[in-house]
Amino acid sequence: MAPERYCYAFEEGDGKNKHLLGGKGAGLCTMTQIGLPVPPGFVITTKANVDYLESGGQFPEGLMDEVHEYMEALEKKTDKGFGNPENPLLISVRSGSALSMPGMMDTILNLGLNDETVPGFIKLTQNERFVYDAYRRFLQLFGKIGLGIQDEHFDKIFEEIKGKYHAHVDTELNAKALAEVCDRFKELIKQKTGKPFPQDPWAQLVMAVDGVFKSWTGKRAVDYRRQFNITPDMAYGTAVNICTMVFGNMGTDSATGVGFTRDPGTGENILYGDYLVNAQGEDVVAGIRTPRPLRELRTDMPEIYKQLEQLRHTLEQHYREIQDFEFTIERGKLYMLQTRNGKMNAWALCKTSVDLVKEGLINEEEALLRIPPDFLEQFLHRRIDPDAKVEPIAVGIAASPGAAVGKVVFDADRAERLGNEGEKIILTRIETKPEDIHGFFAAQGILTSRGGKTSHAAVVARGMGKPCVSGAEGMDINYELKEARIGKHIIKEGDIVTIDGGAGAVYLGAVPMVDPKVSDDLVMLLQWADKISRLEVWANADTPEMAAKAREHGAKGIGLCRTERMFNEADRLPLVRSMILANTPDERKRWCDKLLPMQRQDFYDIFKAMDGLPVTIRLLDPPLHEFLPTIEELLNDISRLKEFSQVMYSLEQLPGTAMMIDPELYKLMPSIETMTREFSEYKTKKLDQKLLKQKEEVLRRVRVLTEVNPMLGNRGIRCGISFPEIYDMQLQAIFEATALALRDKIDARAEVMIPQVCTAKELEWVKERAVRIHGEVEKRYNVKIPHKFGTMIEVVRACLRAGRIAEIAEFFSFGTNDLSQATFSFSREDAENKFLPIYNTEGILRDNPFEILDVMGVGRLMELAVKEGRQTRPNLKVGICGEHGGQPQAIEFCHQVGLNYVSCSPMRIPIARMAAAHAVIKEKGRAVTKAL
Amino acid sequence: MAPERYCYAFEEGDGKNKHLLGGKGAGLCTMTQIGLPVPPGFVITTKANVDYLESGGQFPEGLMDEVHEYMEALEKKTDKGFGNPENPLLISVRSGSALSMPGMMDTILNLGLNDETVPGFIKLTQNERFVYDAYRRFLQLFGKIGLGIQDEHFDKIFEEIKGKYHAHVDTELNAKALAEVCDRFKELIKQKTGKPFPQDPWAQLVMAVDGVFKSWTGKRAVDYRRQFNITPDMAYGTAVNICTMVFGNMGTDSATGVGFTRDPGTGENILYGDYLVNAQGEDVVAGIRTPRPLRELRTDMPEIYKQLEQLRHTLEQHYREIQDFEFTIERGKLYMLQTRNGKMNAWALCKTSVDLVKEGLINEEEALLRIPPDFLEQFLHRRIDPDAKVEPIAVGIAASPGAAVGKVVFDADRAERLGNEGEKIILTRIETKPEDIHGFFAAQGILTSRGGKTSHAAVVARGMGKPCVSGAEGMDINYELKEARIGKHIIKEGDIVTIDGGAGAVYLGAVPMVDPKVSDDLVMLLQWADKISRLEVWANADTPEMAAKAREHGAKGIGLCRTERMFNEADRLPLVRSMILANTPDERKRWCDKLLPMQRQDFYDIFKAMDGLPVTIRLLDPPLHEFLPTIEELLNDISRLKEFSQVMYSLEQLPGTAMMIDPELYKLMPSIETMTREFSEYKTKKLDQKLLKQKEEVLRRVRVLTEVNPMLGNRGIRCGISFPEIYDMQLQAIFEATALALRDKIDARAEVMIPQVCTAKELEWVKERAVRIHGEVEKRYNVKIPHKFGTMIEVVRACLRAGRIAEIAEFFSFGTNDLSQATFSFSREDAENKFLPIYNTEGILRDNPFEILDVMGVGRLMELAVKEGRQTRPNLKVGICGEHGGQPQAIEFCHQVGLNYVSCSPMRIPIARMAAAHAVIKEKGRAVTKAL
Repeated sequence: MAPERYCYAFEEGDGKNKHLLGGKGAGLCTMTQIGLPVPPGFVITTKANVDYLESGGQFPEGLMDEVHEYMEALEKKTDKGFGNPENPLLISVRSGSALSMPGMMDTILNLGLNDETVPGFIKLTQNERFVYDAYRRFLQLFGKIGLGIQDEHFDKIFEEIKGKYHAHVDTELNAKALAEVCDRFKELIKQKTGKPFPQDPWAQLVMAVDGVFKSWTGKRAVDYRRQFNITPDMAYGTAVNICTMVFGNMGTDSATGVGFTRDPGTGENILYGDYLVNAQGEDVVAGIRTPRPLRELRTDMPEIYKQLEQLRHTLEQHYREIQDFEFTIERGKLYMLQTRNGKMNAWALCKTSVDLVKEGLINEEEALLRIPPDFLEQFLHRRIDPDAKVEPIAVGIAASPGAAVGKVVFDADRAERLGNEGEKIILTRIETKPEDIHGFFAAQGILTSRGGKTSHAAVVARGMGKPCVSGAEGMDINYELKEARIGKHIIKEGDIVTIDGGAGAVYLGAVPMVDPKVSDDLVMLLQWADKISRLEVWANADTPEMAAKAREHGAKGIGLCRTERMFNEADRLPLVRSMILANTPDERKRWCDKLLPMQRQDFYDIFKAMDGLPVTIRLLDPPLHEFLPTIEELLNDISRLKEFSQVMYSLEQLPGTAMMIDPELYKLMPSIETMTREFSEYKTKKLDQKLLKQKEEVLRRVRVLTEVNPMLGNRGIRCGISFPEIYDMQLQAIFEATALALRDKIDARAEVMIPQVCTAKELEWVKERAVRIHGEVEKRYNVKIPHKFGTMIEVVRACLRAGRIAEIAEFFSFGTNDLSQATFSFSREDAENKFLPIYNTEGILRDNPFEILDVMGVGRLMELAVKEGRQTRPNLKVGICGEHGGQPQAIEFCHQVGLNYVSCSPMRIPIARMAAAHAVIKEKGRAVTKAL
Repeated sequence: MAPERYCYAFEEGDGKNKHLLGGKGAGLCTMTQIGLPVPPGFVITTKANVDYLESGGQFPEGLMDEVHEYMEALEKKTDKGFGNPENPLLISVRSGSALSMPGMMDTILNLGLNDETVPGFIKLTQNERFVYDAYRRFLQLFGKIGLGIQDEHFDKIFEEIKGKYHAHVDTELNAKALAEVCDRFKELIKQKTGKPFPQDPWAQLVMAVDGVFKSWTGKRAVDYRRQFNITPDMAYGTAVNICTMVFGNMGTDSATGVGFTRDPGTGENILYGDYLVNAQGEDVVAGIRTPRPLRELRTDMPEIYKQLEQLRHTLEQHYREIQDFEFTIERGKLYMLQTRNGKMNAWALCKTSVDLVKEGLINEEEALLRIPPDFLEQFLHRRIDPDAKVEPIAVGIAASPGAAVGKVVFDADRAERLGNEGEKIILTRIETKPEDIHGFFAAQGILTSRGGKTSHAAVVARGMGKPCVSGAEGMDINYELKEARIGKHIIKEGDIVTIDGGAGAVYLGAVPMVDPKVSDDLVMLLQWADKISRLEVWANADTPEMAAKAREHGAKGIGLCRTERMFNEADRLPLVRSMILANTPDERKRWCDKLLPMQRQDFYDIFKAMDGLPVTIRLLDPPLHEFLPTIEELLNDISRLKEFSQVMYSLEQLPGTAMMIDPELYKLMPSIETMTREFSEYKTKKLDQKLLKQKEEVLRRVRVLTEVNPMLGNRGIRCGISFPEIYDMQLQAIFEATALALRDKIDARAEVMIPQVCTAKELEWVKERAVRIHGEVEKRYNVKIPHKFGTMIEVVRACLRAGRIAEIAEFFSFGTNDLSQATFSFSREDAENKFLPIYNTEGILRDNPFEILDVMGVGRLMELAVKEGRQTRPNLKVGICGEHGGQPQAIEFCHQVGLNYVSCSPMRIPIARMAAAHAVIKEKGRAVTKAL
C-alpha cells in the first residue's frame, strides 16, 4: 500500500473530489487547473483531519513532513521565504469541508508574521499601518483558533486602545496605535497561555492546522451539523487550505469583492456582484463601508472587468452551473480566492435552468434537478415585500403560506356580507369551525388566536390556498366588544392588518406586497418534468373553482373531492343538521332528498371543470357530530334560554320594580338590566319554550353522537353503513350528475371513493347498494354511466387485507394522514400540540410524520398494500391523497413503490410535478451507480 | 371409477364417517354393528343431498334404484311389505347432517300409511285409534315436508275437530274423530296442491326424500348455520335415515325414553334418563305428561333395565365418550333409535374426563380435549340458582360474570363505609369513574345505568372478578333523591337487589345463589394441561390480593401490573393531582417524591406475593387528564362558586330585605332561598375566592391536558417522556422495592414494561434513564438488582419496527386491545356503542375484534413482530397481556406463532391453561393429519 498522502498543491488536487479536498479546496484546485489566477497554495485533505480525530488528536505520521515539502514549493513559486525577515511569505489557513457550513469553520490570515518579519514586510510594502493592521488581525485570529483564547479578551484590549486614542472606528487608529495593540495582544497571549506568543512561523503553522482540525468537533460546528442533519457520509472532517496571502487593502489599485456569474435575483446572464476598493474580505462582511456594484468596475478598472467577464464564462463552461466567487485585486492584479455554486431565488433558478439548457451546457434532466421542488412554493403566494421595513405586532403559527391585507372582521356572516360588497377581509376568530366556511370563502386570509398547524382554520386555509396565521401569541379577542388586544395595541373591527402566513407574522396596517407569478421558465420546466415522470399529479379539490385552479396548474385529475365541505356550506348546514337529527331512517331519507339536488349540482359543476379527466369523489367521511354544535355551546344556549323563561313573566308584571327596591339590593341586580335588554331581543326573536325543547333535543342527540375518540369513531364507511341514506343520496347524486353532464357533452369520469374501509365486506356492502343505484339511474336516464369504484387505504387493516379488498376496489388511494395517525397511535392534533415538539428536541423523532412520510413504518404498510393489491388485480390504480401527496420526499417514495398518481392541494401541483420528475431522474442515477 | 353409491344399510355404513352418513345415521350404523337392537333401516348419504343441490334439485341418477333395492331388503328383514295392505311396512324418514342442528331439520313418521294400509294396520294392531292417530301425524308431517304446506293449516283443522268434539287435548279424541281429521287433512292437501294425497307409498317416499333434501337450504337451516358459523367443511348436506317404525305407544308394555350413560349433572357413573310409558317421542317433547326417571324402570321393566345397563357400557366402550341416546320399547322389546355424545355441565365434564382416564377408556390428552376452555367459566362465579323462579326487573349488558346480592348504594364513599361495616353492597351509579375505585373494592357487585362492555365499570369489575351489569335498560338513577326508578319499581338506597353479571339481569330482593367451586377433577386436569403446554399462563394483577389469587389459580408470573390503578387509590389521588398540576419539573418531582414510598410499598407487596416468579410492571399508561375532574364538572363547580361570591355580600348586608320587597318580585327570587341555604353551607365549608381561583387554575390545566383523541394522545411512553419525573419515580420505586425484597429473602423478579412504544428511540430514551437509576439504587443499597427491560407491543408501528425495537427490549408483550383499535381504526368504546352491533347484524364483522382476536389483520402484525423481533434477539421473550390473553382462540393463535406466555385476568387462568394445552394437542393432531 502506498503511504497515505495528505497534501495536494492547487495544481494537483482533483477538483471533483470535494469529500477529500473540501468544497473550498476543490474550487481552488479547479480554478488553478482551468487557468484562473489563484494565489499559489495547497490543501491538507479531510483525510488528515479524520485520522487526526480518530487518533484522539494526534497529527498523522508524515503529515508535517509533507506540509514542509509543500511550503518549500510555495517559497519557490512565490520567491519568498517563510519567516524570512527580508521577504516574508505570508499565508492564510482556512478550513473547508465537503459541505458549505457558513460561519461555522475557522480562518487564520497573515500567518508568517512575527516580530522579525513585520519590519521586513513594512520595508517591502512601505506601509507601516497596513502591516501592523495585518499583524494585529493575525494575532487575534491565531490567538483564538490556534490557542483557544476567547475573542472578547482581544476585543476588550482593542476597545481600550481605541478609547485611549479617541478613535471611533478601526481606521482611525494609526500605525503606532496598532503596534500598541499588537504588543498588548502578545502580552494577553502570554498571560492566557503561560507562554510567549510563538514567533516561529513553523510553530504557528502547526498550531493553526491543529486549531482548524479541532474546529470540526467544536460546539458551533457540531450544532450546525445536527441542525441541518449533516451526517458523516455527507461531510466528514475539514480540509485545511493553505494559500499565499494577497491583499486587497494595499491602496486604491487594490480591491476585494464577490461575484456571481449571473444575476442571482433574476437569473439574467450578466456579471453580478459587489466590490470594495482598498479593503479586505473582512471589511465587506463588517458592513462599515458600502460596497459598489461590480458594473462600476467596468469604468474603475476596465482591464480587470474584462478579465472577470471572461472568467465567469470559463467558470460556467467548466462547472455548468452558476458560480458565486470571491476575488481580490492586489495592486492591479486579480486573484480568485473561492468559487462555489451560486444560490438564488426560485425565479432565477428556473430562468438559469432554461437558459443553461438553451446554451447547451446542461440537459433537461440536469436542469430539473437543479430545482428543489419545495423552492417552487415561492411562486405560489403573495409575499410581504422583502424591502419593506416593518415589525410584526404578533407572531403565531405559520399555518398556511402567503400574505394578505384586509379589514379585521370577527364573524363569518359579517365577513361574507362585507366580502360580497367587495371589501378585503381578514377573518379573525379565537378559533374557526365548519360553519364559518362561508367566511373563509369571503376572506383574504384567516387569523386565529388559538390552534396550531392542524387547527380547523389552518387545514381549511391550506386547502383553499389562503394565507393563515393561527394561534397568534398574546392576541386576546373579545367578540362582544368586537376587538382584539395584542399587548398595547387594540384592533377594532374594520381596522386593517396584514398577515404573513408563511412567517406566522401579523402587522398593523397594509404592508407592501409582492404578487406571485409563475414564470414562463417554470412552465417550460414543468413540461419537461411531465415528459419523464411516471407518476401523474392530481389535485385535492372540493369546488369547481379549486378544480379549475388545479387544472390550470396541470392536474391530470382530481384525486380527492371531499363531499363534507359541501355539507358545511351555509345554505346546506341547516338541512344537514336536520338530516342528522332525524329520528327515523324515513325522516333522514326525506332530508337527504332535499340535499340530493344540491350535491348533484356540486358534482355536475366539478365534472364540467374537469371535463375529460377523472374526478375522485369521496363519500362523507367525518363523524356526524362534527356538523352539530358542541355540548358546551348547547349548554350555554340552554342556560340562557332557561334564564329567560324564568324571569320573563316577572319582568312583564313588574315595570320599574327594580327601581323601587332598596339600593343595596341593587347589587344583586346587575343581571336584571341585562335581562331587560335581552328580553326585548327575546320578544323580537320569539325565543320560547319550543326553542328550549329543540335545543334540549339537539343536546340529547349530540350527547348520543359524541365520541371518546372521534378519529376512530363512527365516521367514513362506518357512518355510511350506520346511516345508509347518506351514501345512497351521494351515490345517486354522483350518477345523476354524470348522466346530466354526459347529456351536455361533458366527458364526466366519476371515481367513487369510500373512506375508512378496514375490511372487504364493508366495501362489498356499499358496492351492492352502489350497483343497485347505478342501475336505477342508468335506467331512468337511459344512458350508460361510466364510473369506477374504489377505496381510501387509510386504515392499517386495509393495508394488511389489501389483497382481499382489491377484489372489490378498482383503485386504492392512500390516506396517509389517517394511516400515519393509526400506525403511530398519534392523534395528529394532540401530538403536534403536546409531545411532538419534545420528541424533536430530544432527537426521538427528527421529522413530524404528518409532514414527512414515515417510510420505515407507514411506507412499509403502503408497499405491502400495493404489492398485495396488484397480486389480486394487476391493473389496480393506486394513488395517494393525504397531505404527503404534495411532499417531495413522499412523492419520491410513491414513485419507488409504483403508485400511479399523487394528489395534492392545487397550489402544490407544480411542486409535485417537479418532485415526480426528480424521482425518475434520481432512480436512473441510482441505477447507473448500481451498474458501476 | 366405481359408480356412485348412495345407500348404506345400518349393517354396512362406516359409523366413523359422519360426513357421509350424518351424525344420526352414523350412530344407527354403529349401534347396529356393535350388536345393539336397532330397527332395520338404511342411510341415504349426504353426498346424495350434495349432488341433488348442485344439480339444482335433481335426484342423482341411480339413487331411487338403490333406494328400491334397500327397501326390498328391508321388506325381507321385517317380513312386511311396503304398501302391503295386509302387513304394511311403515318407516320413518329423518334428516341428519354431520353436525347436530337441533330442531332445524325435518322428520316424517309412519310413512307407508295410506287408505289401503290403514285397515290392514288396524287389523294387525287391533287398535283403530292408534292407527288413525299415526295416520293423521303422518299426513301432517308429510304435507309439511313433502308438499310444503304450512303447519298452521293442519293445526287449524285439528283445532276445529277438537272443538267439534269438545276435546281439550289430543288424547280426548277417539278413533272416529281422528279418522275425520285424516279425511280433512287429505282434503286440505288436495286443495293446497291441486292433487289428491299420494296414496302410493313409493311416491310418498320420493317426495319425503325430496323434502328432506330441500330442508338443507330452508331458511331455518341456513339461519342456524349462519348463526353458529357452520361452514361447508364442517357439515355439507344432510343424510336421510330410513328406518322401520317402532311404536312406544302400543300399550303399557311399550314406552319411549332418553338416556345418558352417566349423570350429565354430576358426571356420576350411573344410568340416567327419563321415560314415558305408552308414548311416542313427540309426547315427551310436547311436555303434557311428566316423564319418570329411568331408575323406576328397574322395578317397572327389570329385564329392559338390565338390558339398558349393559347397553350403556357397550356404548361407552365403543365411543369412549358419554352417550345421550333415545330408545323405544315396543310391546316389551327394546329398540335403540339414536345415540350421540352427551352434553353436560362443566363439573360433570371434568369428572367424567378424569373417570374415563382412570377407567382406561381415554388418555389424558383426550380427556383435556373434551373440555371447551370457556366452559370452565362455570367454575369461577357464583350463579343464580338455576331452580330459582325469578323474573328480572331490568336487563342490561352482561359486563362481568357472576352473581351478587347486596344493598343498593349510590356513592362510592358510602359504599366503602358500609362495606367496612360488613354490609354487602351493590355499588349503583349512572356510570363509574376512577375515583370510585374504593367503592368497587367494598362492593359485591356493580350496577350502572349507562355504559357498555368497555365502560369503566365493566373493565374494572372484570379485572377484579366482581359481577357487573352495566347500562341497565330503563333504570333512571337520581343521586339527590338516592333512588333508582325502573318502570314501576322504585329502588331506594339500602334496598336489596341481586345482579347476574353473566346474564346482565337485575332482580329485586335476594335471589338464591349457587357458590362457585373448583372441583378436584379440574385441578387434576389442569395439572395434566400444564404438563404438555408450551405456553405459560401469567396473570394481569395490580394488587397483592390479585397476585395471590392469580398464584392460587396457577399463574406462572404477572404479565401486567398496571401502576395507574395505584395512582387512583383514594389516599393517592390528591397527591397525583397535585403532581399533575405542578407548574415546573421541580415541583412535579417534589410530588413524585411523596408518591415514591407508596409505589415502592406497592411493588414490595406484589413481589412478596409472587416470590420467585416474574412480575411485569407497566409504567404509567393513561393520559394525565384521566386523573383530573372533567371540564364539565369544573365548569359546574365554578359557576356554583361564582354564584356564591356574587351574592354573599349582598345577603349579609340585607337581612330580611327579600321579605320587604314587592311580593310580585318574589317570583324572581326562588334562587335566593336556595342561595341562603347554600350560604350557610358556604360558611361551614369555607368556600371562598381562593377555592374559586384554584378551580379556575385546575380548569385551565385540564383544558391544556384534554385531548381530541385521548386513545392516541399524550399517554404511555409519550407522557413518560413529556413528564420524565413520573417514570423516574416509578423506576426508582421498582428497583428500591426489589432491593428491599431481596434483603428480606424474597426472590423479586421485576420486569419493567414500557407502554405505547412506536419507535426504538423512545425506548432507548427511557432505558438510558432506567440504567442510570438502576445503577444509583444498586449503589445505594449495595446489592445487585436483577431485572428485565421490555416493552408493550400495542402500536402498529412497533410491530413494523420490531426488529429494531428488539435491540433494546428484552421482552415484548402484545397489548392487543390497543393494537386492535389502531389496526381497525376503531375506538373500542365508540365502536361497541355505535356501529359494531350493526356490523354484526349486517354480517360485515361476525366477531367483535376486541373479544375475538382478528387473526387476519392484528394477528398478521403479531406474527411479523415475533419473527422480526426474534431475528434480532433469538431469545426474545414474547407474551400477550391484552384481554385476548384469556380468550381460547387467541391463545391457540399465540401458541402457533410461538409466544412464550399469555397473561390474563386471574379468574380466567384455568381457562387459559386449558386452552394452552388444547393448542398443543390440536397442533399434534394437525401434524398427524399432515403426515397422513
